[in-house]
Amino acid sequence: MPYPKAAMTVDGPRGEPGRPPRSTTRDLERYAGLFATRTQGLRSSAMRDLMAVTARPEIISLAGGLPDTSTFSPALLGSLMRTVAEEASARALQYGPTEGLEEVKACIVEVMAEEDMRVDPDDLLVTAGGQQVIDLVCRTLLDPGDVVIAEGPTYPGAVPSLLAFQADVRQIPTDDDGMRIDALEETLAGLDREGRRPKFIYTIPSFQNPGGMTMSLERRRRLVAIAREREVLILEDNPYGLLRYEGDPQPTLRSLDGGDYVIYLGTFSKILSPGLRLGWTTAPRPILDKLNVGKQGADLCSSTFGQHFVAAYFAAQDWRAYLGTLVALYRRRRDAMLAALDEHLPPEATWTRPRGGLFIWARLPDYLDTTDLLARALREQVAFVPGRAAYLDGRGGSELRLNFSGVTEEDIHEGVRRIGRIVGEQVAMYSTLTGLEPVRPVSRETGDSAGGAGRVVPFHVKRRAG
Amino acid sequence: MPYPKAAMTVDGPRGEPGRPPRSTTRDLERYAGLFATRTQGLRSSAMRDLMAVTARPEIISLAGGLPDTSTFSPALLGSLMRTVAEEASARALQYGPTEGLEEVKACIVEVMAEEDMRVDPDDLLVTAGGQQVIDLVCRTLLDPGDVVIAEGPTYPGAVPSLLAFQADVRQIPTDDDGMRIDALEETLAGLDREGRRPKFIYTIPSFQNPGGMTMSLERRRRLVAIAREREVLILEDNPYGLLRYEGDPQPTLRSLDGGDYVIYLGTFSKILSPGLRLGWTTAPRPILDKLNVGKQGADLCSSTFGQHFVAAYFAAQDWRAYLGTLVALYRRRRDAMLAALDEHLPPEATWTRPRGGLFIWARLPDYLDTTDLLARALREQVAFVPGRAAYLDGRGGSELRLNFSGVTEEDIHEGVRRIGRIVGEQVAMYSTLTGLEPVRPVSRETGDSAGGAGRVVPFHVKRRAG
Repeated sequence: MPYPKAAMTVDGPRGEPGRPPRSTTRDLERYAGLFATRTQGLRSSAMRDLMAVTARPEIISLAGGLPDTSTFSPALLGSLMRTVAEEASARALQYGPTEGLEEVKACIVEVMAEEDMRVDPDDLLVTAGGQQVIDLVCRTLLDPGDVVIAEGPTYPGAVPSLLAFQADVRQIPTDDDGMRIDALEETLAGLDREGRRPKFIYTIPSFQNPGGMTMSLERRRRLVAIAREREVLILEDNPYGLLRYEGDPQPTLRSLDGGDYVIYLGTFSKILSPGLRLGWTTAPRPILDKLNVGKQGADLCSSTFGQHFVAAYFAAQDWRAYLGTLVALYRRRRDAMLAALDEHLPPEATWTRPRGGLFIWARLPDYLDTTDLLARALREQVAFVPGRAAYLDGRGGSELRLNFSGVTEEDIHEGVRRIGRIVGEQVAMYSTLTGLEPVRPVSRETGDSAGGAGRVVPFHVKRRAG
Repeated sequence: MPYPKAAMTVDGPRGEPGRPPRSTTRDLERYAGLFATRTQGLRSSAMRDLMAVTARPEIISLAGGLPDTSTFSPALLGSLMRTVAEEASARALQYGPTEGLEEVKACIVEVMAEEDMRVDPDDLLVTAGGQQVIDLVCRTLLDPGDVVIAEGPTYPGAVPSLLAFQADVRQIPTDDDGMRIDALEETLAGLDREGRRPKFIYTIPSFQNPGGMTMSLERRRRLVAIAREREVLILEDNPYGLLRYEGDPQPTLRSLDGGDYVIYLGTFSKILSPGLRLGWTTAPRPILDKLNVGKQGADLCSSTFGQHFVAAYFAAQDWRAYLGTLVALYRRRRDAMLAALDEHLPPEATWTRPRGGLFIWARLPDYLDTTDLLARALREQVAFVPGRAAYLDGRGGSELRLNFSGVTEEDIHEGVRRIGRIVGEQVAMYSTLTGLEPVRPVSRETGDSAGGAGRVVPFHVKRRAG
């Protein structure tokens, strides 16, 4: 211990008498005055907090947004990294260009081509996952109070970025065809009257997180047309487009727009690995340049170590084959979850039937609060994301998000059974207390769905008073 | 190509007549109105731009801040990743907790202990390199116009973050003992008169980037005392503390302060690999919590893939032995650069003599502009960082940063020779044009240094009129 100890009395500046150091009690008050305004109201994402709780192995977590990384061959991981070590060790361990490695951009060009998009590698910026794109876009475009349009519900992970950059977020209602463009137009007209225009429209058009719904082609065309007409940017978040279990592929907004008003976000997280923290964006060049400068400040560059792994993987393997494995697996798990929901949730609940992606969104009767329910669920060793996490205005209180990609079929069934029992008890208790049937039960045989399969009722189209 | 094409005429909202899409010419003007105020004046870091230019192998780049990653055994990289693959493949490819993996926190505790710091793993946040800490601290603490104190010169990579969060940066002059605390006190007194107080004091006390100087123990104590007295936070950036080539270790500000007012930044970039993009921070708990929320928005978590590599490395290897290799290598390169500067730079130039770290900072006569000089240097296939990159107010025009860690001794000698020739020509031209000796030449034999070795004159203590 060659280090001198800190003086126990402190010399004040300019010869003022010293005073002893303050107590080391670390109270929020001492630092409270130092925080930026942007951190007020910033709360830890419900999802991230849940992630910590649900890391315990005894919990069946339907809360995560986790791909099943156990499907990736450990032997392949080992051999790919041996290749990286032999061919590029010093480069893989070194800093890289902010925009990303050319080899990785070539992989991205391939992935985007799979959804019929053509992109010049010079128009790409490799990022720390899709999350960083959302954050950099907010950082680059938002002054405090600027309006951002988002879907309701929206990706819970976008909330900390939107709040940090003090966005005035207007959430547009959704239905089974995605964002309701009629409601968007009403909102835009209202903003016109206020003399305001949104900085960008944030959307996950395909297999939305958390809603599970997919924007129809007609709405995609209208949305792109509105963006052009009004010169408003769209941030298209497309992590799940290739995880399609049924139905025809829809063109991305970027392919419809050609890239004039669409900032596109892609990621390796769902087709390869989220642990690499590698995603990308392509945007109109002046915006891309600003995003690049933002990234220089944020982290200099994305992990070259991970980028070399991606490049080695695409060079050695058929990434589409692995994607096919994931699609087949997640399709079975989605089907398992839909079957379990049908079996275990009381007739008062409704949920979406996603044609791809990772999530099902369920709605319980209005008198149930899913945040309260979660505490109960955790005691029963099962977790979900409460719906409020997907809204910035306190809505979503009776809704919840369920993930099926990261959980075995057995755990899906057991997890949903537990949730169903808790919900059933609450519904029964409500009935007993009020002496009322809470809502008209749906016939097991016929359902009242507008075209859904059996009781799989898209909640968005189910109209209820209140 | 199953995708429908975008309509060529566009339906306007609310039934307005459509109009054809605009030209796809991507002009800055179209998007200019959309950028956040914070992006005004934001420029690409000179260092990052240089990095792109100097990636060409024919260029001898003394511009980077690169460790020599070729010293890390490729075979070891391969075998460590085989271990990761065998023992933790699915976890290494998965999302992780925002605060970082416990295994990595244990490594950080070890590294910090090496500089006599004790830290509770719960007080650590694993970040995307040290850069992300700077950025998250700015994001968490700065409202537009808030004052930040920094050294002059300061780390060029901090500039994009400081500008992005609209800091009012006051740079305090430095000398061979680091930040001049008398000048700091003057600045603080001036701020008092304005009724302002800085949000934090940003400093790299040991082997500063870019200056190469190290803060004396007395100044460290005074700085920590001032922080306590005034309840001002310090951001201590310490990437190089363990890269010490001579002299006694100095206690970190964090160890002197105990962590009440010091936010500490460490990184694996210089002791292992920057390509992993892994660093860390420890801070008073209320601040750490806010930094964590900021990181959730920024990128969810740091690369678990890279974190597993770090954990495997620390488990399998003696990291201090590798550090010892780096120290021995970089010491030789520092000595080579000092010798080359002595041989090739004209007597009008002065430079620092760092006792550790990666950089030497040189000052040329005031009539030379190192930004102009760089263009000439690049034609001669050699690069450095012009001094203006290290100031926010245009100062530093006749200064430059030279890196010795990432370049062979041979290239150091040749690179400095080329720079010396260019500088010599410019000095001679100036003499010819003005008919004057530009400054009094320093005797080769005696020097006029205040205690330096031969002509190694710490420019900070050399007083010149103007």
